[in-house]
Formats: sequence, C-alpha cells, structure tokens
Amino acid sequence: MPRSHQAVFVPLSGERFRVVYRIRGSEDQAHAIARDICVEQTIEFPLELTPVGDLRDHIVGRIEELDRLDDSHWRVVISYAVETTGFELTQLLNVVFGNFSLKPGVRVEWLDLPPSLARGIDGPRFGCAGLRARLGAWRRPLLCTALKPMGLPIDRLADLAYSFARGGIDVIKDDHGLANQPFAPFDERVQRCADAVARANRETGLTCIYAPNVTAPGDAAVRHARYAKSAGAGGILISPGLAGLGVMSQLAADDGIDLPIFSHPSFLGSFITSPDQGIAPGVLFGQIARLAGADASIYPNYGGRFSLTREDCRAIAEAAAGPLAGLAPIFPVPGGGMTVERVPELLEFYGPEVILLIGGGLHQHGPDLTETCRDFRRLVERF
Amino acid sequence: MPRSHQAVFVPLSGERFRVVYRIRGSEDQAHAIARDICVEQTIEFPLELTPVGDLRDHIVGRIEELDRLDDSHWRVVISYAVETTGFELTQLLNVVFGNFSLKPGVRVEWLDLPPSLARGIDGPRFGCAGLRARLGAWRRPLLCTALKPMGLPIDRLADLAYSFARGGIDVIKDDHGLANQPFAPFDERVQRCADAVARANRETGLTCIYAPNVTAPGDAAVRHARYAKSAGAGGILISPGLAGLGVMSQLAADDGIDLPIFSHPSFLGSFITSPDQGIAPGVLFGQIARLAGADASIYPNYGGRFSLTREDCRAIAEAAAGPLAGLAPIFPVPGGGMTVERVPELLEFYGPEVILLIGGGLHQHGPDLTETCRDFRRLVERF
Repeated sequence: MPRSHQAVFVPLSGERFRVVYRIRGSEDQAHAIARDICVEQTIEFPLELTPVGDLRDHIVGRIEELDRLDDSHWRVVISYAVETTGFELTQLLNVVFGNFSLKPGVRVEWLDLPPSLARGIDGPRFGCAGLRARLGAWRRPLLCTALKPMGLPIDRLADLAYSFARGGIDVIKDDHGLANQPFAPFDERVQRCADAVARANRETGLTCIYAPNVTAPGDAAVRHARYAKSAGAGGILISPGLAGLGVMSQLAADDGIDLPIFSHPSFLGSFITSPDQGIAPGVLFGQIARLAGADASIYPNYGGRFSLTREDCRAIAEAAAGPLAGLAPIFPVPGGGMTVERVPELLEFYGPEVILLIGGGLHQHGPDLTETCRDFRRLVERF
Repeated sequence: MPRSHQAVFVPLSGERFRVVYRIRGSEDQAHAIARDICVEQTIEFPLELTPVGDLRDHIVGRIEELDRLDDSHWRVVISYAVETTGFELTQLLNVVFGNFSLKPGVRVEWLDLPPSLARGIDGPRFGCAGLRARLGAWRRPLLCTALKPMGLPIDRLADLAYSFARGGIDVIKDDHGLANQPFAPFDERVQRCADAVARANRETGLTCIYAPNVTAPGDAAVRHARYAKSAGAGGILISPGLAGLGVMSQLAADDGIDLPIFSHPSFLGSFITSPDQGIAPGVLFGQIARLAGADASIYPNYGGRFSLTREDCRAIAEAAAGPLAGLAPIFPVPGGGMTVERVPELLEFYGPEVILLIGGGLHQHGPDLTETCRDFRRLVERF
C-alpha cells in the first residue's frame, strides 16, 4: 500500500512562499537541519517512501539559499508551495513552524509571502490609515493608555477612562488582565467605560476610543466583541496568545464587529526569549500579528520592564509596515514600563507612525491624571 | 485620582490557587523576581500607588514558599485569588504566565488548582474512561496512527484509513498537516476517510475511530468539527497552539459535537525548549491540554525525532492523570518518530493508560500495512 502512493492529483500553481530560518550548528548540521525542515514541515514522512513526482518535488519544502552568519549560525531560505497552506492562517503557521517549534536551534527570521496567500488570509481590517481615519489624526503619533489595576471596581475604572479621555488620549484600552471577573464583570464594565469616554468626547470635541479586552475562550471572545460594539466601544483588545491567532482573525473579518483591533503579547513571550529558538520579534509582533488581523500590535519596548532590544523593536516597526502579501500596514505599539519622560526619545526612534502606550507610568508622573495626559499629548503634537 | 483608588467592592472568597515557578538567579534575584511575578501577573501597576485593603492584600499574588534548588535555581510557590481568573481558561493562563512569558529566567513547573476553578473551565468531555467506553477497550493500551503524507489525494488517504482500521488500530488521526488544501479538501476527505473506516469496522467487528484535523481559524474549526460529526468521524484532532486553547475548550463543551478530542503539539514547542523559560512539558501537555478540553494529548516522546527527556514524559503522564481541579484524567499520547520495535519498551515505561502513536514508522516496518498494524496490536494485547 504505501509503496504505491501516487502524486497529488490537483496541479500546483508553482507559486511558492519563502521562510527565512536561523539555524545554530556546524555547516554540516545546518544542511541536515535545513533538509529536515523541508520534510518535517510538510510531508512529515520518510522521504525514501515518498513517491517521486509532484509530492516529492513540490510539496516537500525546498532549500533556496544557505549562508553563513557566523561560526555557529546559518541563514537558510526555504520555499513551500502556496497550496500547502490551504490559504488559511493556522495552516500557514503550521507549515512555517508547527513541528519545528519542538526542536531546539531554529528560529523563524522572516516571512516572504506573495499576495496570493491573502486569498484566505484577510489581515487587518483598518490598518494605519483606517485607524487614523477613525481617530481623525492624520500625521502625528497616537497616544494610548490602559485602565488598571485589576481589582478596581467599575466606577473607579470609568472615572479613570473619563480622566484619560479628557486629557487627550487617543486609545484607552483595558489592562489585559481585566477579563470577566466578579469585581468588574465584562458587560457592565464595558458599558460604563464606553459611556465615560463618550461623555468626555462630547465635552472635548475629541474622538478618543475605548478598547475593552475581549480575550475569552472561543466564541466568548466574539460575543464580547459584539457586546463591545453595541456598547459604543471604538476598538477591541485581544491577547491572541491566549484566545488564538485564528480567533483574532475571525474578529477582524466580522462585519458585525467592524472595530480596530489591538493585539496584546500576553503568553507569547516564550517564542521570543531565545535568539536560537522560536520566532523573531519582528515576525511575531509585526508580520504574524498583521496576518492575524491586528491593526495595532502591542509589544514590550526596549528599555522597559522586559527584554527586547532596540534592533528587535526596529524590526517590529519595519515588519508592521513592510510588504506582506499585499496587506495594509499596521501600527507598532511599544509599551511595558514606558514613561512620559521617554516620549521624545521614543518619537525620535519610531517617527510618527507609532502608537505610544504608557500605562502605570502616567500615574507615576504627577497627581493629576488629566494634566499628565495633556503633557503627554503636547509632547506628541510638538513632534 | 490614582491616589484615591478604592478596594474591590465584591468580597473575595479567600480561596486561592497555587503556581509553582522555577526561577534562575541568585537568592536576592529570586526574591525580587518572585515579588515581581506577584505584581506583574495581577495588578501590573506600581505597588506604591496601589490602595491598601483587598486589592493589595488579596488581588496581588502572594509568595507562599521559596526554596533553593541549586546554586542558581529556586522553586517559588505563588498563590492567587481564584477570582482573578474570572473562572475562565484564557484568564487563568494569563494570570499564570501572561506577561511573565516575556521575561527570561522563569518557568512554570506546576499548577495546583482547586475544584472551584472548574466552575467555568469544563476540561475534558470524555477523559480516559469516556474514550475507552467509546472504543470498547477497557484495560489495554490504545493504538493510534496518522494519515499521511500531506499531498496524497483523497482516495489514497481513504485507502490508508481502511488498511489501518482493518489491522486493528483504535484511532486513525489525520496528519496535523492535512487541513483544507486543494489536493485533499476537508469535507470530501473527511467523508471518504470516515466511510473507509466504517467499512473496515463492519468487516472486522472492531470500533476504530477516525479523527480528522479540524484546526482552522476561529469558528472554521467549529464548522469543521460539526461536519466531522455529521460525516461519522469518531473523534477530532486539533492543534491548540494554532487554533487557540480556548477554541479547543469550546469544541469540548459543544453538545452538538460530542467527540473525543486529540490535542496536537504543533507550534507549542517554544514553551518547552528551554529549562529556564516557558512552561514545563508536564504542565503544558498534561495540565493545560487537560484544562483546555483534550481527552488525549499528543507530544513528542523521548528518544524520537524531538527533544523531550524520559523525566519530561513521566511528568506529562502524571499530569494527565493527577488531581487537577476535579477534572477527569486524560490519555498521554507519545509520538514523533516511534516505531513498532519500541512498543515493548514504551509499554514498560507508560503502563496500560496510554495511547501509542506510530505514524511513519508503520510504513517503514514492512510492505503490508495491515499486517504491520496487526503486529502492533498483538504487542499491545500481550501486555
């Protein structure tokens, strides 16, 4: 039976996408690992039992380039037939890194995807331009903060939202730890915070949006997002590491939701904490978040409480904007221990196409939150 | 405004769950990191600005134990109020490791969860006993294989399914790379393979089940699972690292699906490839897969193509069976490069409460697949 495997019957287009991997090892090891990637990520089957023809020649990955980076690291480019992905997000990621995530010494460094992949991968609904249109802010960097801490009752969270909106913040997101806890149940919290922001907007004439955290298991995230829409929220926050990248993409594609999506990095850190394993931060927070429908991708900035480097952050910003299957560019959202004092440096580093997220740091800046937000906004408008 | 934060208004039950972390560093560093975990995983807010009372005393994590493991590693037990989880899977995982996944040097080693958490976390629908009842196999280890390679046309996949079922395999799963590609579209493939297995069952009198891969973005996974049910599939395969742990739990809770769930480790490897970061394999493939509704959890066995140790695999099997919020035990499913020759050793290691997964290895064993399956089954029945 297995010896008589036949070739695929549906002709392949010949179009391929390319993945850049960084491999640790000697030159011989790098070649062996590269060949292993080609098989493990596709047929996952003994090559000697695999029939010649389309299956072995086109379904199996193909080594396109293999270059030395240093004595123990190699850059290899492997191409795959676009049809292996079924033109859907989850299977694309499965081909890119599914089983090989379980083997040490290989990191995904870049995705080079043709527009044909976007046939079934919608990507961001708004992107930078769409989000700017919703906010009426065309050129300047955007301002974001978070409602926190977890444990505050709803009226205190709504008061905070009002203060932030009065001070000129563009996007007020829930802290990603605000879920549906008994001390601040989702529905009531979202309605009250959305109302508080709407009241502030009426008073200021500004267009601040509130983005509640809809992260929840399976279709509970969809229910939350629809409720958020009905309550007047102007965006949604989701942690795709918890809810699933595919769920985020479903929210982005849902015409009944039609809200900008802010992606949070919670639970995704293990992909990026080693230079010799996982997924490069630019790929994860730039390319993959974008493929999965984020309009803005939050990540821990260099020099904060977390461990990304300036180069990582540069790569994320570039990946958020660069060519990717014809999808719209999205915003990088550096956060994680940022302060008002660092705003000039951050603007210098990122330029205008950025959303600056300051959470706890706003509370530490001074006693009047609204005034602090106005300081934050002046720094950005001066840019 | 921030200085006037009030305590939570909803009284907490006082019940707490416990997480064991392994921390790398000096003793002083370990204490500092442990304190940081308590704050980062809950309020994520400057402690000095956090109001005294319930919020600071009960919402913030609490260090319960801190012990030396060796010169540079520490075991710390931190407890959290059960209410912080909102009694849902995604927020539980967010409290356990959400933001701290982004910091190096900390690994989740164990979850100690009280039954109250199962209020909103259903876990496995079948568990070991339910799956055994469906298969009518009460004591012996169970046999599993995979339809592969990706790229075969549907009639060849259906032929393989028939051969495996004739040979006495209990569970025939799709290879996790079979999605909805043009060379083997989901609906037709599932119907044809389910029919082939049903035909074999009529001939053998056995109760082999076919578990197609329903991994897909968002509710496409639900559609696939419902289609699988209607086509006569006896189980489903899903990669929660791609589709989302919450989506798997939704499938488990869906009375309209009501099929045993086989969880695949694709894309989850970055959590387990470092001893100093991520999530211990026992927690990820044992406890978390079980919390998220898997009835059987596939993982790369020691001595195969991947890198888990015997101790890791022992921990997974123990975590699949041990106390966990009152949830039913589930099956460990070691795979990834297993062979028929290794069956006696695997049975010695795991005992009867295991599903042995041999994929490509069945094809390498001999020219007649059905005979190979019979050899495989004889080895297991002799145990």
